[in-house]
Amino acid sequence: MAITDDFYSLLSTTRSIRRIRDTPIDQETLERVCQASVWAPSGGNRQPWRLIAVRDRAIKEKLSALYVDEWAKYVDYNIAKLGDQPAEVIQKVRAQFGTGTALAENLADIPVVALFVHDPSALYVTDAGLGRHPVVGGASLYPAVQNFLLAARAEGLGGVLTTLICSRESELRDILKFPDGWGVHAMIPLGYPKGNHGPLQRAPLNTMMSIDTWSF
Amino acid sequence: MAITDDFYSLLSTTRSIRRIRDTPIDQETLERVCQASVWAPSGGNRQPWRLIAVRDRAIKEKLSALYVDEWAKYVDYNIAKLGDQPAEVIQKVRAQFGTGTALAENLADIPVVALFVHDPSALYVTDAGLGRHPVVGGASLYPAVQNFLLAARAEGLGGVLTTLICSRESELRDILKFPDGWGVHAMIPLGYPKGNHGPLQRAPLNTMMSIDTWSF
Repeated sequence: MAITDDFYSLLSTTRSIRRIRDTPIDQETLERVCQASVWAPSGGNRQPWRLIAVRDRAIKEKLSALYVDEWAKYVDYNIAKLGDQPAEVIQKVRAQFGTGTALAENLADIPVVALFVHDPSALYVTDAGLGRHPVVGGASLYPAVQNFLLAARAEGLGGVLTTLICSRESELRDILKFPDGWGVHAMIPLGYPKGNHGPLQRAPLNTMMSIDTWSF
Repeated sequence: MAITDDFYSLLSTTRSIRRIRDTPIDQETLERVCQASVWAPSGGNRQPWRLIAVRDRAIKEKLSALYVDEWAKYVDYNIAKLGDQPAEVIQKVRAQFGTGTALAENLADIPVVALFVHDPSALYVTDAGLGRHPVVGGASLYPAVQNFLLAARAEGLGGVLTTLICSRESELRDILKFPDGWGVHAMIPLGYPKGNHGPLQRAPLNTMMSIDTWSF
Protein backbone atom coordinates (compact mmCIF):
# COMPACT_ATOMS: atom_id res chain seq x y z
CA MET A 1 0.00 0.00 0.00
CA ALA A 2 2.56 2.55 -1.15
CA ILE A 3 0.02 5.35 -1.53
CA THR A 4 -1.12 4.90 2.08
CA ASP A 5 2.49 4.81 3.33
CA ASP A 6 3.35 7.98 1.43
CA PHE A 7 0.18 9.62 2.65
CA TYR A 8 0.89 8.84 6.29
CA SER A 9 4.48 10.02 6.01
CA LEU A 10 3.17 13.28 4.57
CA LEU A 11 0.70 13.74 7.43
CA SER A 12 3.21 12.79 10.10
CA THR A 13 5.75 15.36 8.87
CA THR A 14 3.39 18.30 8.37
CA ARG A 15 4.50 20.51 11.21
CA SER A 16 3.99 24.23 11.74
CA ILE A 17 6.63 26.15 9.76
CA ARG A 18 7.38 29.67 11.03
CA ARG A 19 10.86 30.24 9.54
CA ILE A 20 10.21 30.81 5.84
CA ARG A 21 12.47 31.80 2.90
CA ASP A 22 11.61 34.73 0.66
CA THR A 23 11.89 32.46 -2.41
CA PRO A 24 8.82 33.21 -4.58
CA ILE A 25 6.00 30.70 -5.05
CA ASP A 26 4.92 30.37 -8.66
CA GLN A 27 1.26 30.86 -9.47
CA GLU A 28 0.61 27.27 -10.64
CA THR A 29 1.97 25.84 -7.37
CA LEU A 30 -0.09 28.29 -5.33
CA GLU A 31 -3.22 27.38 -7.27
CA ARG A 32 -2.69 23.65 -6.66
CA VAL A 33 -2.52 24.33 -2.93
CA CYS A 34 -5.66 26.48 -3.05
CA GLN A 35 -7.46 23.85 -5.14
CA ALA A 36 -6.77 21.34 -2.36
CA SER A 37 -8.66 23.68 -0.01
CA VAL A 38 -11.61 23.81 -2.40
CA TRP A 39 -11.88 20.01 -2.32
CA ALA A 40 -12.66 20.05 1.43
CA PRO A 41 -16.18 19.25 2.67
CA SER A 42 -18.59 21.80 4.16
CA GLY A 43 -22.10 21.72 5.57
CA GLY A 44 -24.63 21.25 2.75
CA ASN A 45 -21.64 21.64 0.36
CA ARG A 46 -22.20 25.42 0.64
CA GLN A 47 -18.42 26.19 0.74
CA PRO A 48 -19.14 29.35 2.79
CA TRP A 49 -15.57 30.69 2.63
CA ARG A 50 -13.07 32.35 0.29
CA LEU A 51 -9.28 32.47 0.23
CA ILE A 52 -7.36 35.70 -0.39
CA ALA A 53 -3.70 35.00 -1.21
CA VAL A 54 -1.77 38.18 -0.51
CA ARG A 55 1.42 38.70 -2.53
CA ASP A 56 1.44 42.54 -2.53
CA ARG A 57 4.11 43.88 -0.18
CA ALA A 58 2.17 46.97 0.90
CA ILE A 59 -0.80 44.82 1.95
CA LYS A 60 1.47 42.36 3.75
CA GLU A 61 2.99 45.27 5.68
CA LYS A 62 -0.49 46.27 6.89
CA LEU A 63 -1.16 42.67 7.96
CA SER A 64 2.19 42.60 9.74
CA ALA A 65 1.34 45.73 11.77
CA LEU A 66 -1.88 44.15 13.01
CA TYR A 67 -0.27 40.80 13.68
CA VAL A 68 2.71 42.24 15.58
CA ASP A 69 0.22 43.98 17.84
CA GLU A 70 -1.90 40.86 18.51
CA TRP A 71 1.14 38.64 18.88
CA ALA A 72 2.59 40.95 21.55
CA LYS A 73 -0.68 40.74 23.49
CA TYR A 74 -0.62 36.94 23.21
CA VAL A 75 2.97 36.76 24.53
CA ASP A 76 2.09 39.09 27.41
CA TYR A 77 -0.97 36.93 28.21
CA ASN A 78 1.23 33.85 28.39
CA ILE A 79 3.90 35.61 30.45
CA ALA A 80 1.25 36.88 32.88
CA LYS A 81 0.05 33.30 33.41
CA LEU A 82 3.53 32.47 34.81
CA GLY A 83 2.83 34.68 37.85
CA ASP A 84 5.82 35.29 40.09
CA GLN A 85 8.16 32.74 38.57
CA PRO A 86 11.91 33.60 38.65
CA ALA A 87 13.15 36.07 36.04
CA GLU A 88 15.17 33.32 34.30
CA VAL A 89 12.01 31.26 33.73
CA ILE A 90 10.14 34.25 32.34
CA GLN A 91 13.09 35.11 30.08
CA LYS A 92 13.22 31.52 28.81
CA VAL A 93 9.49 31.43 28.01
CA ARG A 94 9.74 34.80 26.27
CA ALA A 95 12.63 33.43 24.17
CA GLN A 96 10.45 30.46 23.12
CA PHE A 97 8.09 32.95 21.51
CA GLY A 98 11.01 34.47 19.55
CA THR A 99 10.34 32.60 16.30
CA GLY A 100 6.72 33.77 16.35
CA THR A 101 7.78 37.34 17.06
CA ALA A 102 10.20 37.27 14.12
CA LEU A 103 7.45 35.86 11.87
CA ALA A 104 5.08 38.68 12.86
CA GLU A 105 7.70 41.39 12.34
CA ASN A 106 8.86 40.00 8.98
CA LEU A 107 5.48 39.00 7.59
CA ALA A 108 5.97 41.26 4.55
CA ASP A 109 8.96 39.12 3.49
CA ILE A 110 6.84 35.93 3.35
CA PRO A 111 6.01 35.23 -0.31
CA VAL A 112 2.29 34.54 0.24
CA VAL A 113 0.09 35.34 3.24
CA ALA A 114 -3.20 33.47 2.85
CA LEU A 115 -6.26 34.94 4.54
CA PHE A 116 -9.37 32.76 4.90
CA VAL A 117 -12.71 34.58 5.20
CA HIS A 118 -16.23 33.22 5.68
CA ASP A 119 -19.93 34.05 5.57
CA PRO A 120 -21.34 33.50 9.07
CA SER A 121 -24.91 33.54 7.72
CA ALA A 122 -24.23 30.30 5.83
CA LEU A 123 -23.16 28.37 8.95
CA TYR A 124 -25.58 26.09 10.83
CA VAL A 125 -24.18 26.40 14.37
CA THR A 126 -25.64 23.47 16.32
CA ASP A 127 -23.65 24.17 19.50
CA ALA A 128 -24.82 27.76 19.97
CA GLY A 129 -26.62 28.47 23.25
CA LEU A 130 -24.83 25.77 25.27
CA GLY A 131 -23.19 28.24 27.67
CA ARG A 132 -19.76 28.17 26.02
CA HIS A 133 -18.21 29.57 22.85
CA PRO A 134 -19.58 27.55 19.91
CA VAL A 135 -17.10 25.86 17.60
CA VAL A 136 -19.31 24.02 15.09
CA GLY A 137 -19.25 26.82 12.49
CA GLY A 138 -15.61 25.82 12.05
CA ALA A 139 -16.68 22.39 10.73
CA SER A 140 -17.39 24.03 7.36
CA LEU A 141 -14.18 26.09 7.39
CA TYR A 142 -11.13 24.39 8.89
CA PRO A 143 -11.17 21.19 6.81
CA ALA A 144 -10.29 23.48 3.88
CA VAL A 145 -7.55 25.13 5.94
CA GLN A 146 -6.08 21.75 6.84
CA ASN A 147 -6.16 20.63 3.18
CA PHE A 148 -4.21 23.82 2.38
CA LEU A 149 -1.51 22.97 4.94
CA LEU A 150 -1.24 19.36 3.73
CA ALA A 151 -1.04 20.38 0.08
CA ALA A 152 1.62 22.94 0.99
CA ARG A 153 3.63 20.10 2.57
CA ALA A 154 3.15 17.97 -0.54
CA GLU A 155 4.60 20.83 -2.61
CA GLY A 156 7.62 21.25 -0.31
CA LEU A 157 6.14 24.44 1.11
CA GLY A 158 5.37 25.16 4.75
CA GLY A 159 3.12 27.39 6.79
CA VAL A 160 1.43 27.79 10.11
CA LEU A 161 -2.26 28.11 10.96
CA THR A 162 -2.68 31.36 12.90
CA THR A 163 -5.86 32.97 14.23
CA LEU A 164 -4.67 35.88 16.40
CA ILE A 165 -5.37 38.40 13.65
CA CYS A 166 -9.05 37.32 13.45
CA SER A 167 -9.99 39.75 16.23
CA ARG A 168 -9.04 42.63 13.91
CA GLU A 169 -11.90 41.89 11.54
CA SER A 170 -13.01 45.44 10.71
CA GLU A 171 -9.47 46.60 9.91
CA LEU A 172 -8.92 43.48 7.81
CA ARG A 173 -12.12 44.26 5.93
CA ASP A 174 -10.73 47.68 5.03
CA ILE A 175 -7.43 46.15 3.87
CA LEU A 176 -8.77 43.10 2.00
CA LYS A 177 -12.15 44.51 0.84
CA PHE A 178 -14.25 41.49 1.80
CA PRO A 179 -17.99 42.14 2.33
CA ASP A 180 -19.70 43.47 5.42
CA GLY A 181 -20.88 40.61 7.59
CA TRP A 182 -18.05 38.27 6.58
CA GLY A 183 -15.47 37.15 9.15
CA VAL A 184 -11.82 36.07 9.12
CA HIS A 185 -11.02 32.60 10.42
CA ALA A 186 -7.36 31.94 9.56
CA MET A 187 -4.12 33.45 8.32
CA ILE A 188 -1.40 31.19 6.94
CA PRO A 189 2.05 32.60 6.06
CA LEU A 190 3.24 30.31 3.23
CA GLY A 191 6.64 29.67 1.68
CA TYR A 192 9.64 27.37 1.37
CA PRO A 193 10.91 26.46 4.85
CA LYS A 194 14.31 27.50 6.21
CA GLY A 195 14.34 24.33 8.36
CA ASN A 196 13.07 20.84 7.68
CA HIS A 197 9.63 19.29 7.61
CA GLY A 198 8.55 16.90 10.42
CA PRO A 199 8.83 15.12 12.86
CA LEU A 200 5.90 16.06 15.10
CA GLN A 201 5.58 16.21 18.87
CA ARG A 202 2.14 14.88 19.72
CA ALA A 203 0.45 13.08 22.61
CA PRO A 204 0.47 9.24 22.35
CA LEU A 205 -2.54 7.74 20.56
CA ASN A 206 -3.82 5.91 23.65
CA THR A 207 -4.16 9.24 25.47
CA MET A 208 -6.24 10.70 22.62
CA MET A 209 -8.51 7.84 21.53
CA SER A 210 -10.76 5.47 23.42
CA ILE A 211 -13.31 2.83 22.45
CA ASP A 212 -17.07 3.11 23.20
CA THR A 213 -16.83 5.60 26.09
CA TRP A 214 -14.39 8.10 27.61
CA SER A 215 -11.59 6.17 29.34
CA PHE A 216 -8.84 8.71 30.02
CA MET B 1 6.22 14.01 -8.38
CA ALA B 2 4.25 10.78 -7.97
CA ILE B 3 3.63 11.36 -4.26
CA THR B 4 2.05 14.73 -4.99
CA ASP B 5 -0.09 13.25 -7.77
CA ASP B 6 -1.28 10.43 -5.53
CA PHE B 7 -1.93 12.90 -2.74
CA TYR B 8 -4.04 15.16 -4.94
CA SER B 9 -6.04 12.25 -6.32
CA LEU B 10 -6.75 11.16 -2.75
CA LEU B 11 -7.97 14.65 -1.77
CA SER B 12 -10.01 15.11 -4.91
CA THR B 13 -11.88 11.85 -4.37
CA THR B 14 -12.61 12.21 -0.64
CA ARG B 15 -16.32 12.80 -0.75
CA SER B 16 -18.92 12.39 1.98
CA ILE B 17 -19.94 8.74 2.24
CA ARG B 18 -23.36 8.11 3.79
CA ARG B 19 -24.11 4.62 2.42
CA ILE B 20 -21.87 2.31 4.43
CA ARG B 21 -21.49 -1.50 4.61
CA ASP B 22 -21.66 -3.34 7.92
CA THR B 23 -18.27 -5.00 7.16
CA PRO B 24 -16.20 -4.70 10.36
CA ILE B 25 -13.16 -2.41 10.60
CA ASP B 26 -10.18 -4.10 12.23
CA GLN B 27 -8.58 -2.38 15.20
CA GLU B 28 -5.21 -1.71 13.51
CA THR B 29 -6.89 0.05 10.59
CA LEU B 30 -9.03 2.11 12.94
CA GLU B 31 -5.98 3.11 14.97
CA ARG B 32 -4.10 4.27 11.85
CA VAL B 33 -7.03 6.54 10.98
CA CYS B 34 -7.16 7.90 14.54
CA GLN B 35 -3.39 8.41 14.56
CA ALA B 36 -3.78 10.61 11.49
CA SER B 37 -6.12 12.81 13.56
CA VAL B 38 -3.53 13.05 16.33
CA TRP B 39 -0.97 14.41 13.85
CA ALA B 40 -3.09 17.50 13.17
CA PRO B 41 -2.01 20.91 14.48
CA SER B 42 -3.74 22.79 17.33
CA GLY B 43 -3.24 26.11 19.07
CA GLY B 44 -0.14 25.95 21.30
CA ASN B 45 -0.02 22.21 20.42
CA ARG B 46 -2.48 21.67 23.27
CA GLN B 47 -4.50 19.03 21.36
CA PRO B 48 -7.63 19.99 23.33
CA TRP B 49 -9.81 17.14 22.03
CA ARG B 50 -10.35 13.39 22.31
CA LEU B 51 -11.85 10.82 19.98
CA ILE B 52 -14.31 8.18 21.16
CA ALA B 53 -14.73 5.41 18.59
CA VAL B 54 -18.02 3.69 19.32
CA ARG B 55 -18.29 0.03 18.28
CA ASP B 56 -20.83 -1.09 20.91
CA ARG B 57 -24.25 -1.62 19.37
CA ALA B 58 -26.25 -0.48 22.41
CA ILE B 59 -24.36 2.82 22.49
CA LYS B 60 -24.78 3.28 18.73
CA GLU B 61 -28.54 2.77 19.17
CA LYS B 62 -28.63 5.61 21.69
CA LEU B 63 -26.68 7.84 19.30
CA SER B 64 -29.07 6.88 16.51
CA ALA B 65 -32.11 7.93 18.56
CA LEU B 66 -30.63 11.40 19.15
CA TYR B 67 -29.46 11.76 15.57
CA VAL B 68 -32.81 10.67 14.03
CA ASP B 69 -34.45 13.40 16.10
CA GLU B 70 -32.01 16.17 15.09
CA TRP B 71 -31.94 15.03 11.47
CA ALA B 72 -35.76 15.26 11.28
CA LYS B 73 -35.61 18.84 12.60
CA TYR B 74 -32.94 19.69 10.02
CA VAL B 75 -35.04 18.29 7.16
CA ASP B 76 -38.09 20.21 8.41
CA TYR B 77 -36.00 23.40 8.62
CA ASN B 78 -34.92 22.96 4.99
CA ILE B 79 -38.44 22.12 3.84
CA ALA B 80 -39.83 25.18 5.65
CA LYS B 81 -37.35 27.39 3.75
CA LEU B 82 -39.03 26.30 0.50
CA GLY B 83 -42.16 28.22 1.50
CA ASP B 84 -45.17 27.65 -0.76
CA GLN B 85 -43.41 25.77 -3.56
CA PRO B 86 -45.48 23.11 -5.38
CA ALA B 87 -45.89 19.76 -3.61
CA GLU B 88 -43.74 18.03 -6.27
CA VAL B 89 -40.79 20.31 -5.47
CA ILE B 90 -41.15 19.73 -1.74
CA GLN B 91 -41.40 15.98 -2.32
CA LYS B 92 -38.25 16.04 -4.47
CA VAL B 93 -36.25 17.96 -1.86
CA ARG B 94 -37.45 15.60 0.85
CA ALA B 95 -36.31 12.66 -1.27
CA GLN B 96 -32.83 14.23 -1.56
CA PHE B 97 -32.55 13.93 2.20
CA GLY B 98 -33.42 10.22 2.02
CA THR B 99 -29.84 8.94 2.21
CA GLY B 100 -29.25 11.02 5.33
CA THR B 101 -32.47 9.78 6.88
CA ALA B 102 -31.46 6.17 6.24
CA LEU B 103 -28.03 6.84 7.76
CA ALA B 104 -29.60 8.27 10.93
CA GLU B 105 -32.08 5.40 11.27
CA ASN B 106 -29.47 2.70 10.65
CA LEU B 107 -26.60 4.26 12.59
CA ALA B 108 -26.30 1.20 14.83
CA ASP B 109 -25.36 -0.90 11.76
CA ILE B 110 -22.34 1.33 10.95
CA PRO B 111 -19.21 -0.46 12.20
CA VAL B 112 -17.67 2.58 13.94
CA VAL B 113 -19.28 5.88 14.93
CA ALA B 114 -16.52 8.33 15.89
CA LEU B 115 -17.40 11.10 18.32
CA PHE B 116 -15.02 14.03 18.71
CA VAL B 117 -15.13 15.91 22.04
CA HIS B 118 -13.16 18.96 23.19
CA ASP B 119 -12.21 21.07 26.20
CA PRO B 120 -13.56 24.59 25.60
CA SER B 121 -11.35 26.02 28.36
CA ALA B 122 -8.25 25.19 26.28
CA LEU B 123 -9.40 27.21 23.26
CA TYR B 124 -8.18 30.77 22.61
CA VAL B 125 -11.21 32.21 20.80
CA THR B 126 -9.97 35.36 19.08
CA ASP B 127 -13.24 36.05 17.26
CA ALA B 128 -15.47 36.10 20.36
CA GLY B 129 -17.33 39.36 20.93
CA LEU B 130 -17.56 40.35 17.26
CA GLY B 131 -21.37 40.22 17.14
CA ARG B 132 -21.61 36.85 15.40
CA HIS B 133 -21.07 33.22 16.39
CA PRO B 134 -17.33 32.67 16.84
CA VAL B 135 -15.66 29.91 14.80
CA VAL B 136 -11.97 30.18 15.77
CA GLY B 137 -12.17 27.54 18.51
CA GLY B 138 -12.62 25.13 15.62
CA ALA B 139 -9.10 25.89 14.36
CA SER B 140 -7.74 23.55 17.04
CA LEU B 141 -10.37 20.86 16.39
CA TYR B 142 -11.37 20.38 12.76
CA PRO B 143 -7.90 19.90 11.24
CA ALA B 144 -7.86 16.62 13.21
CA VAL B 145 -11.34 15.76 11.92
CA GLN B 146 -10.25 16.38 8.32
CA ASN B 147 -7.12 14.24 8.80
CA PHE B 148 -9.46 11.47 10.00
CA LEU B 149 -11.59 11.71 6.85
CA LEU B 150 -8.54 11.74 4.57
CA ALA B 151 -6.93 8.78 6.33
CA ALA B 152 -10.23 6.92 6.10
CA ARG B 153 -10.15 7.51 2.33
CA ALA B 154 -6.55 6.28 2.17
CA GLU B 155 -7.66 3.05 3.87
CA GLY B 156 -10.57 2.56 1.48
CA LEU B 157 -13.04 3.60 4.17
CA GLY B 158 -15.54 6.41 3.99
CA GLY B 159 -17.46 8.67 6.32
CA VAL B 160 -19.24 11.97 6.61
CA LEU B 161 -18.59 14.87 8.94
CA THR B 162 -21.81 15.55 10.84
CA THR B 163 -22.52 18.10 13.57
CA LEU B 164 -26.29 17.96 14.12
CA ILE B 165 -25.92 15.81 17.22
CA CYS B 166 -23.65 18.40 18.91
CA SER B 167 -26.68 20.24 20.29
CA ARG B 168 -27.47 17.17 22.44
CA GLU B 169 -24.34 17.65 24.52
CA SER B 170 -25.72 16.76 27.95
CA GLU B 171 -27.35 13.54 26.74
CA LEU B 172 -24.15 12.61 24.90
CA ARG B 173 -22.20 13.21 28.13
CA ASP B 174 -24.42 10.67 29.88
CA ILE B 175 -23.94 8.15 27.07
CA LEU B 176 -20.21 8.61 26.42
CA LYS B 177 -19.09 9.62 29.95
CA PHE B 178 -16.89 12.55 28.90
CA PRO B 179 -16.23 15.19 31.60
CA ASP B 180 -18.43 18.09 32.61
CA GLY B 181 -17.47 21.20 30.70
CA TRP B 182 -16.39 19.31 27.58
CA GLY B 183 -18.29 19.72 24.31
CA VAL B 184 -18.99 17.60 21.22
CA HIS B 185 -17.84 18.98 17.87
CA ALA B 186 -18.25 16.16 15.34
CA MET B 187 -19.69 12.73 14.69
CA ILE B 188 -18.36 10.61 11.82
CA PRO B 189 -20.05 7.33 10.86
CA LEU B 190 -17.17 5.24 9.42
CA GLY B 191 -17.04 2.14 7.29
CA TYR B 192 -16.49 0.60 3.88
CA PRO B 193 -18.63 2.42 1.29
CA LYS B 194 -21.47 0.82 -0.62
CA GLY B 195 -20.78 3.20 -3.51
CA ASN B 196 -17.55 4.58 -4.91
CA HIS B 197 -15.16 7.25 -3.73
CA GLY B 198 -14.95 10.59 -5.61
CA PRO B 199 -15.45 12.64 -7.78
CA LEU B 200 -16.41 15.86 -5.99
CA GLN B 201 -18.83 18.62 -6.89
CA ARG B 202 -17.18 21.89 -5.89
CA ALA B 203 -17.19 25.52 -6.99
CA PRO B 204 -14.51 26.45 -9.58
CA LEU B 205 -11.19 27.63 -8.10
CA ASN B 206 -11.51 31.15 -9.53
CA THR B 207 -14.75 31.66 -7.61
CA MET B 208 -13.08 30.63 -4.32
CA MET B 209 -9.60 32.21 -4.49
CA SER B 210 -8.38 35.71 -5.29
CA ILE B 211 -5.04 37.49 -5.16
CA ASP B 212 -4.27 40.39 -2.78
CA THR B 213 -7.85 41.53 -2.16
CA TRP B 214 -11.43 40.24 -2.48
CA SER B 215 -12.36 40.14 -6.18
CA PHE B 216 -15.53 38.04 -6.40
